[in-house]
Amino acid sequence: MKKKLKLGMIGGGKGAFIGAVHRIAARIDDEYELVCGAFSSDPAKSRESGSSLGLNPSRVYESYEQMFDTESKLPESERMEVVSIVTPNHVHFDPAAQAMRKGFDVILDKPMTLTLQQALDLKKVAEETGRLLCLTHTYTGYPMVKEARQIVASGKLGAIRKVYVEYPQGWLSTFEEDKDNKQAAWRTDPSKSGKAGAMGDIGTHAFNLAEYVSGLQVTKLCADINIVVKGRKLDDDGAALLKFNNGASGVLFATQIAAGEENNVKVRVFGEKGGIEWQQVDANTLQLKWLDKPAEIWRTGTGYVSAFAAHNSRTPSGHPEGYLEAFANLYRNFALTLNARKENKQPEAQWLDYPGIEEGIRGMTFIEKVIESGESDNKWTDF
Amino acid sequence: MKKKLKLGMIGGGKGAFIGAVHRIAARIDDEYELVCGAFSSDPAKSRESGSSLGLNPSRVYESYEQMFDTESKLPESERMEVVSIVTPNHVHFDPAAQAMRKGFDVILDKPMTLTLQQALDLKKVAEETGRLLCLTHTYTGYPMVKEARQIVASGKLGAIRKVYVEYPQGWLSTFEEDKDNKQAAWRTDPSKSGKAGAMGDIGTHAFNLAEYVSGLQVTKLCADINIVVKGRKLDDDGAALLKFNNGASGVLFATQIAAGEENNVKVRVFGEKGGIEWQQVDANTLQLKWLDKPAEIWRTGTGYVSAFAAHNSRTPSGHPEGYLEAFANLYRNFALTLNARKENKQPEAQWLDYPGIEEGIRGMTFIEKVIESGESDNKWTDF
Amino acid sequence: MKKKLKLGMIGGGKGAFIGAVHRIAARIDDEYELVCGAFSSDPAKSRESGSSLGLNPSRVYESYEQMFDTESKLPESERMEVVSIVTPNHVHFDPAAQAMRKGFDVILDKPMTLTLQQALDLKKVAEETGRLLCLTHTYTGYPMVKEARQIVASGKLGAIRKVYVEYPQGWLSTFEEDKDNKQAAWRTDPSKSGKAGAMGDIGTHAFNLAEYVSGLQVTKLCADINIVVKGRKLDDDGAALLKFNNGASGVLFATQIAAGEENNVKVRVFGEKGGIEWQQVDANTLQLKWLDKPAEIWRTGTGYVSAFAAHNSRTPSGHPEGYLEAFANLYRNFALTLNARKENKQPEAQWLDYPGIEEGIRGMTFIEKVIESGESDNKWTDF
Amino acid sequence: MKKKLKLGMIGGGKGAFIGAVHRIAARIDDEYELVCGAFSSDPAKSRESGSSLGLNPSRVYESYEQMFDTESKLPESERMEVVSIVTPNHVHFDPAAQAMRKGFDVILDKPMTLTLQQALDLKKVAEETGRLLCLTHTYTGYPMVKEARQIVASGKLGAIRKVYVEYPQGWLSTFEEDKDNKQAAWRTDPSKSGKAGAMGDIGTHAFNLAEYVSGLQVTKLCADINIVVKGRKLDDDGAALLKFNNGASGVLFATQIAAGEENNVKVRVFGEKGGIEWQQVDANTLQLKWLDKPAEIWRTGTGYVSAFAAHNSRTPSGHPEGYLEAFANLYRNFALTLNARKENKQPEAQWLDYPGIEEGIRGMTFIEKVIESGESDNKWTDF
Repeated sequence: MKKKLKLGMIGGGKGAFIGAVHRIAARIDDEYELVCGAFSSDPAKSRESGSSLGLNPSRVYESYEQMFDTESKLPESERMEVVSIVTPNHVHFDPAAQAMRKGFDVILDKPMTLTLQQALDLKKVAEETGRLLCLTHTYTGYPMVKEARQIVASGKLGAIRKVYVEYPQGWLSTFEEDKDNKQAAWRTDPSKSGKAGAMGDIGTHAFNLAEYVSGLQVTKLCADINIVVKGRKLDDDGAALLKFNNGASGVLFATQIAAGEENNVKVRVFGEKGGIEWQQVDANTLQLKWLDKPAEIWRTGTGYVSAFAAHNSRTPSGHPEGYLEAFANLYRNFALTLNARKENKQPEAQWLDYPGIEEGIRGMTFIEKVIESGESDNKWTDF
Repeated sequence: MKKKLKLGMIGGGKGAFIGAVHRIAARIDDEYELVCGAFSSDPAKSRESGSSLGLNPSRVYESYEQMFDTESKLPESERMEVVSIVTPNHVHFDPAAQAMRKGFDVILDKPMTLTLQQALDLKKVAEETGRLLCLTHTYTGYPMVKEARQIVASGKLGAIRKVYVEYPQGWLSTFEEDKDNKQAAWRTDPSKSGKAGAMGDIGTHAFNLAEYVSGLQVTKLCADINIVVKGRKLDDDGAALLKFNNGASGVLFATQIAAGEENNVKVRVFGEKGGIEWQQVDANTLQLKWLDKPAEIWRTGTGYVSAFAAHNSRTPSGHPEGYLEAFANLYRNFALTLNARKENKQPEAQWLDYPGIEEGIRGMTFIEKVIESGESDNKWTDF
Repeated sequence: MKKKLKLGMIGGGKGAFIGAVHRIAARIDDEYELVCGAFSSDPAKSRESGSSLGLNPSRVYESYEQMFDTESKLPESERMEVVSIVTPNHVHFDPAAQAMRKGFDVILDKPMTLTLQQALDLKKVAEETGRLLCLTHTYTGYPMVKEARQIVASGKLGAIRKVYVEYPQGWLSTFEEDKDNKQAAWRTDPSKSGKAGAMGDIGTHAFNLAEYVSGLQVTKLCADINIVVKGRKLDDDGAALLKFNNGASGVLFATQIAAGEENNVKVRVFGEKGGIEWQQVDANTLQLKWLDKPAEIWRTGTGYVSAFAAHNSRTPSGHPEGYLEAFANLYRNFALTLNARKENKQPEAQWLDYPGIEEGIRGMTFIEKVIESGESDNKWTDF
Repeated sequence: MKKKLKLGMIGGGKGAFIGAVHRIAARIDDEYELVCGAFSSDPAKSRESGSSLGLNPSRVYESYEQMFDTESKLPESERMEVVSIVTPNHVHFDPAAQAMRKGFDVILDKPMTLTLQQALDLKKVAEETGRLLCLTHTYTGYPMVKEARQIVASGKLGAIRKVYVEYPQGWLSTFEEDKDNKQAAWRTDPSKSGKAGAMGDIGTHAFNLAEYVSGLQVTKLCADINIVVKGRKLDDDGAALLKFNNGASGVLFATQIAAGEENNVKVRVFGEKGGIEWQQVDANTLQLKWLDKPAEIWRTGTGYVSAFAAHNSRTPSGHPEGYLEAFANLYRNFALTLNARKENKQPEAQWLDYPGIEEGIRGMTFIEKVIESGESDNKWTDF
């Protein structure tokens, strides 16, 4: 009989956006059961959130420390196995490190930590404890993004020469910070968000997507980082020229002041023989362009996609799967990996295809370097 | 503390397609808990399916009759409240009618029954028992389809003059019936599917979409119904000219032999001042076209959509929601309605916006009439 | 040294729409020189139009009869060789027949004549006189429409099973007839337009496109023909179910009351193995869809298109060619054919690929039959 | 009676690409008559080209010097008035300067000259002689690009904050220089192309588009300039971060090694309240995006566009106009301006809306600066 992974959550109380998304993602494929949570630093709010989620009140905690303590003492058949941390960035490192030390695996919202040093430290904790971490870079959960990575890796496009990635948003076009917009408030507050605003919030997604699809690593960059809206404390806009470890170059931009843009993250990768293009607005489609033959439209749910794309979709072609399913793919692949470990089985390659600590460190490096470059008069900043 | 609706399922055993979709839909918004099932007419298969779903073996049944009997005797705090029936068409009426008579509400896959007479009978059972029924015409669960209906109803487009609806598929372009394709096998078998093949399977969806969005009713039609693939027993292709109750006219086509087409169901409605266009391939977008000003692109998750669209989406604009979320909207609205009844509250208009028995009767009438017209030399067949 | 064909024009005076389009089409590839014209039945207007076109006043005529008389007496080195007839439908047959009898080849706007009988008569005149006629069904001049025809003809898609064609417009959504809209006035006047309104004006284009691309012929149809706008004298909307000579079926619709639609004529043809889709709004693209592999995006101006598409475009891929170039392709191919005849050369297959009298007769048959069917209680009307 | 401008041409002999495009552009609106040419530095080839164009052999010249001499002595009623220079970049300045000194107005292909100094010198010649110059930055000839500029200028979008412009091509993905590809040969040869390859050929177009639509001027940039294909002598790829004179920032990229890309030049401009997006692949569409209401789709040929867009299109909405029509708009507006001068009339604002010497100087400055920046270790290079 199927057993679900017992999941706890830190953050994600009433009114939070991403916590609800994590919970839906956890439910879609039925691999998890939410058993406990510390949903807010406000105990009353945590209790109320737990109640509205139908949790046993005894397992709704006032703090994550309390949760780790109490849960770790429960019998194995009951206690939390994995914890989702969906708090602002400044509350990432400590609960993640504590969770690992108490024997829990971790699902963590991006960016991984507040600083690069924390990210490196977290890696050490993971190595010491043997715990696993899944970092929710959602966009790499889309089946067609996985297909893109497979196609690039197959060599069909030849050596990669150029990578363009962009993430335009418009929702911070005005000064939202004082409008009771909780999402805006912490994301623009250096004490909670870290060194970067837009670059940390969505620039890291774009960066992750570029490295994931191309299979390359950025080695240096040259950035223009801007605070466009008056009074804002962190960047709300930026762009960077990129150099990759195989000699390819690229362009990345991310902005939160492109008024009217929704969240149409897009990546294009060009090799000697052709290129690929994917964008979230048409997430079930991957375009392949060729130097000397018609472009091809690859679609999720079809019979011709790779095992990686097939594994990460649920419906026949033409029935769109979206952001929540992409998110669910991260949860599901992490669960399949954890279950394989439990059963001492070798996880399949598709199951291991979720972002983790290395991607987290890359992301924190990006944040450090893109902000450093933005403040520098030197053209190139090395990674 | 939140209580979930206790859900049972009939059909949807291992290898079935739509059963899994129903279960995901039921989980997404956490309004249901699957507590029991009769997943297959093969008891072993039913048990195996129940086990893989993590159900208590005592609540995995060998038949729906057994399930109704046993569950109805359980204490209220445990027993099933709602049953999802996800079997082929010939196993719709009887379990649905029995369920209602035993006091269970019903979620039923479309088309509602095998014959129009069964549909009319089911309505009587519902009236006698006071039970509610949700019919899973998924496409009306999309937020932008709901928005389309609201816009038409608002009168902004003026009186409606023309309705075009289409549902092209290609998956039955070859003779799949003898290829161990379970989906194809029953859908092309008159004893399981009923009078119609393509017209019943997807023609009813197109028909439902046309009536839902336009707010009109078809009064007569003229159909060309074809069996294109040799050896097939039911229609795999068809088209119909339509007349509506306000004098508008329309065109409907549905086909399963449009090789290369996925499931791009599309509807267009034109009034005196403008028109709307929606298609599943770009499900988060609704186009409004105007006689004398620029067309508008309405998108899910934005601040300007109606309460109906807003209520039926979960993510901010730009993060696509797809077919599973549309399906989940039916489940959620039905749950909200059932819960309101439990609490003796008046359900909100948005909650009541799910397809039910009336839509089922319309769909069965369409099937009867479109097939009758296809066989007739008379031009118009009245509804 | 290159010699241009000497062109005359009937109709197309100041304020006319399609006359100016014909003249641009004639100029684009520099195969014609406009030498004379009878631009209006109003002599003063004809003179004024000729003057604004820079014509020698001695070759601007008061009537087409006068033009034919005078021009036929000029020395060969000067006289008109081809005449473009761009008048409303009721002034098609007579000038075309007279022109042929006077030794002039003819370019004629569609539909070919006012009645089917005139079309058949015109064919006789052409046979008797040996004159050639080009009928300006513009949409078949698009390179990707030609490519579509070639792909269907190649058999790559297998036997054709289904044809969908549509031509939605919105410009007659209100009663334009009394608003000094010259285009609307004659098109809705039976004495000038003939039996059909929308069906003659754009239905014939859709019909021509369906037969051209599929390589098939309609054998019977069942039509719903409507006058939607009150007070209008001719149909402004219609749809038809079609049967083709190979057993395929289809759907055609054309409307002028789809408020907000521009002129997005679209054709889809499906065979056993795949399908093609083309629409004017994205005229430089042809989609090929396959049963079991990714769809392909074929584009004008690329290296992989057939000789037919290549011959009919001028710019490298990515630089769009539009409606005027499609129109120019008809003019150019007709010129190349006429020049080949002059030089006693065999025209190439690509040059002969322009619509002519047979297409004109098919179009007039369509008009007769679609209107007959619209008025009939019988389901099918044979061609 | 209408009189056409008498046009001569330098370059554009058989096999040349852009010369034929210029001639079509000149013919479309019938404002010019090609009367003479020096089509090649090879006299035989020039004669052959002139003959195939139907020119009087006495007016086909062996060199542009000879053409200027001879033509300037012809009576005014016969002699050339305007000359189109369609040669590679190293043969721009001298013929343009000579033409002006001989009293001819000039249409010149971009980039204006080989060096910035030549551009500044040419401006002086123009000022001394009073001659006018039209520089064929084609993309600003598109009606929807003009509409975009008008919308930005109207202030509807608020202050401009961000400009993205891109021009991806793939045709130089392989080493074409030794494959008898005439277009590739001169464009990659510094002696003919100048300091820049891709940046000069298409980067200048992107730059011009960015400044034209935004109404802003670049004040500094930071560029990454690459030679991707081995053996190539000039850049085939580049990207630049931009700063504008109002404080806005931007990103420009242009590449000729994006395998599979056609010529989809695209520009996006965002202000405080909304943004616009235009791309050549869908040239008849302009997207307006708003912070808080549905995006709008503006289309050519509609009733709601500005006088600038309306003036620059010929067909009703839905009938696409393309690259050749955009090119023709430059020719037509220049002709209308020249004719107004002849008649001592004030040209209308729409007529004067063609690129000229100032745009040429901006383009040459861009080339100098983008290459300088590419070679520099300093982050920002001032204009």
